[in-house]
Amino acid sequence: MGLIVHKYGGTSVGTIERIMKVADRIIQYKEAGHDMVVVVSAMGKSTDVLVDMAKQISPYPSEREMDMLLATGEQVSIALLAMALHQKGYDAISLTGWQAGVTTESIHGKARITHIETERIRRELARGRVVIVAGFQGVSEAGEITTLGRGGSDTSAVALAASLNADKCEIFTDVAGVYTADPRVVPTASKLDSISYDEMLELANLGAGVLHPRSVEAAKTHKVRLVVRSSFTTEEGTYVEEGAHMETGRVVSGVAHDEDVAKVTVVGMPARVGTLSRLFNTLADHQVNVDIIIQSSYDAAVTNISFTVAGSDLKKTLDTLNAHREQLGFEKVECEEGLSKVSIVGAGMVNNPGVAAEMFRVLAEQEITIKMVSTSDIKVSCVIPAEHTERAVRCLHTAYGLDVAETAVVHGV
Amino acid sequence: MGLIVHKYGGTSVGTIERIMKVADRIIQYKEAGHDMVVVVSAMGKSTDVLVDMAKQISPYPSEREMDMLLATGEQVSIALLAMALHQKGYDAISLTGWQAGVTTESIHGKARITHIETERIRRELARGRVVIVAGFQGVSEAGEITTLGRGGSDTSAVALAASLNADKCEIFTDVAGVYTADPRVVPTASKLDSISYDEMLELANLGAGVLHPRSVEAAKTHKVRLVVRSSFTTEEGTYVEEGAHMETGRVVSGVAHDEDVAKVTVVGMPARVGTLSRLFNTLADHQVNVDIIIQSSYDAAVTNISFTVAGSDLKKTLDTLNAHREQLGFEKVECEEGLSKVSIVGAGMVNNPGVAAEMFRVLAEQEITIKMVSTSDIKVSCVIPAEHTERAVRCLHTAYGLDVAETAVVHGV
Repeated sequence: MGLIVHKYGGTSVGTIERIMKVADRIIQYKEAGHDMVVVVSAMGKSTDVLVDMAKQISPYPSEREMDMLLATGEQVSIALLAMALHQKGYDAISLTGWQAGVTTESIHGKARITHIETERIRRELARGRVVIVAGFQGVSEAGEITTLGRGGSDTSAVALAASLNADKCEIFTDVAGVYTADPRVVPTASKLDSISYDEMLELANLGAGVLHPRSVEAAKTHKVRLVVRSSFTTEEGTYVEEGAHMETGRVVSGVAHDEDVAKVTVVGMPARVGTLSRLFNTLADHQVNVDIIIQSSYDAAVTNISFTVAGSDLKKTLDTLNAHREQLGFEKVECEEGLSKVSIVGAGMVNNPGVAAEMFRVLAEQEITIKMVSTSDIKVSCVIPAEHTERAVRCLHTAYGLDVAETAVVHGV
Repeated sequence: MGLIVHKYGGTSVGTIERIMKVADRIIQYKEAGHDMVVVVSAMGKSTDVLVDMAKQISPYPSEREMDMLLATGEQVSIALLAMALHQKGYDAISLTGWQAGVTTESIHGKARITHIETERIRRELARGRVVIVAGFQGVSEAGEITTLGRGGSDTSAVALAASLNADKCEIFTDVAGVYTADPRVVPTASKLDSISYDEMLELANLGAGVLHPRSVEAAKTHKVRLVVRSSFTTEEGTYVEEGAHMETGRVVSGVAHDEDVAKVTVVGMPARVGTLSRLFNTLADHQVNVDIIIQSSYDAAVTNISFTVAGSDLKKTLDTLNAHREQLGFEKVECEEGLSKVSIVGAGMVNNPGVAAEMFRVLAEQEITIKMVSTSDIKVSCVIPAEHTERAVRCLHTAYGLDVAETAVVHGV
């Protein structure tokens, strides 16, 4: 009994049959006495179809008009899901982003939610209705339709759960939860029963792909209990919540990897105040996301700066650097493609100083060269040649005791 | 120089190529110095696809949710057309019904526009932008998305032209204008240069199909100069305006026909005050549109009432009557299918008493039985067996001097 927010992704509402199944699941919760707010994405590949039409017209369509176009995808899903609930005899109402009071910044294509006017939603809930809200979209103060960018529907769901003070926010997706590693790479990977926000955040940022980091950050900030679970089975998913399983003594919760990494080295930058700031602001202005950064000085006046970017961003990165070579004052740029990043994540790491050393030992034993290292309190990442990724992930998964037989002992509930 | 409203139907924006062509035409007007407001419908068959999805879920989907669903169709077109104008170097902005201030009654599926808050549109025009408005849709005072029903986009365009005091409203469609008869039936039919609102209204109601009667009514009420023309050629269309061509002495402007007519006779109704009112209110409550009505009494206490309905509404009509037989107190219902209605329309008729007689003479000469007759100041309609429709239309077209060679004389401009 309470208020629960559900979120169903594009695959979960990809066909009329699946929409009917989603309706059935919502009805189970409704029958159990819960108030239900349901966030849905656009059906399957419908967003791709819309993007493709826009690209036929213009290589760089206006972001405002893209938002106008793409927002129709979720509007279709919410209407159909409301009809499905009606057809099954339940009262339901669909609301677009603007009708649901989802207010965002006046930015197109990647707006952040500023606040949610929940009055309309609460009124519909009070009437006993299932409230179905279009994910991924909102409205600016000026009355423009905005979209939230990647991971937008997850973020919509978490923001609604926070604003409505919901008991939990369940994210239904095409995987059964958060795993100790990608099961396609590590057959012995197991589903985690629970994970902390910080661990999930590291995993999300590391490309585990189940949840977008923005939604996890929002959940952490507003203490929203998240559950990630399959929309196709009734299997229990993974809880994402504060201090999850601190007591189990689990040191490493998972091994993540990202196979699209390139390393860029800017050689011979003048070692002055503001050098780093100028460099990385220039890249940010050109929409380049930089990940690991290492600075090494070889004399007092000159410094080398290495960083990683997504392999798909390499060309843009090099173009940007070369176009700003004079202002930035560096000597030359070197780069290396075909790299990957392998990471271990675990909240228990903070009290176990040998964890990183163990990682280096395992990789050395496998004769895998480590190109760069980055650490946080709960994560160690190593950049390695991409051809060794799978072997590295499997060996680390075993070394930290995450293979199924052992995990059953480590965090059996 | 001035403000012009354009409306492009679904066929005109049915593909990306056609959207680019529409953009070209708008640019011609813009370059000629006009302010442009453009109303567009959903692309081609996209509305049918949405309706089909809804029908897979429910035979009777909620009208509110249908409006939510269908409104996406126009939202896609407006975004794409704005992108096309941008791509060609022109400033443009798309507006949904609610953004354009199109306020309607709180009725779903067939709302009427109550007023238009034109402030946003005027602001965008003042910035030199082409303003592209989603046709067919609006928003109720309660903030619900509504649609205007059949002919909705034409009505949107006329209402915008009226509210903005536009110089004219051009309706671009897949035919070149209003014809003296359906050119598929009468090869000698010719395009009219102009026609009065009342004549157009009769033709629209009689199934000429070019414009929806609602939009013509709105144009007449607000004195909006309408032009109907082809979106595929540069040919001049037909002007619909007050007192058009009164001076030419044209008696009959066109011959219309409707091949889906059924006649229903309610036999033995009690001849009391309120009988007709009860009967037709009952039918209206069940969404049956009645056309021609004839009452004939065979004694002081009992009356027979005959009326026509669309053939496709016959089953619903009979079901409704039989379900209310006791309340209405009639004896039995008879019906006749396979009928059509052939009509002559012309503002000149009002001063020419022999026009109807001539029609009856032509049909008698062709040995076509007239089942029912209905007249107005500018129209005479005869219900006849449907198999004679085409012959009747052709003979009437010739008899009233509308065949091409002659019309060139009658209303040469």
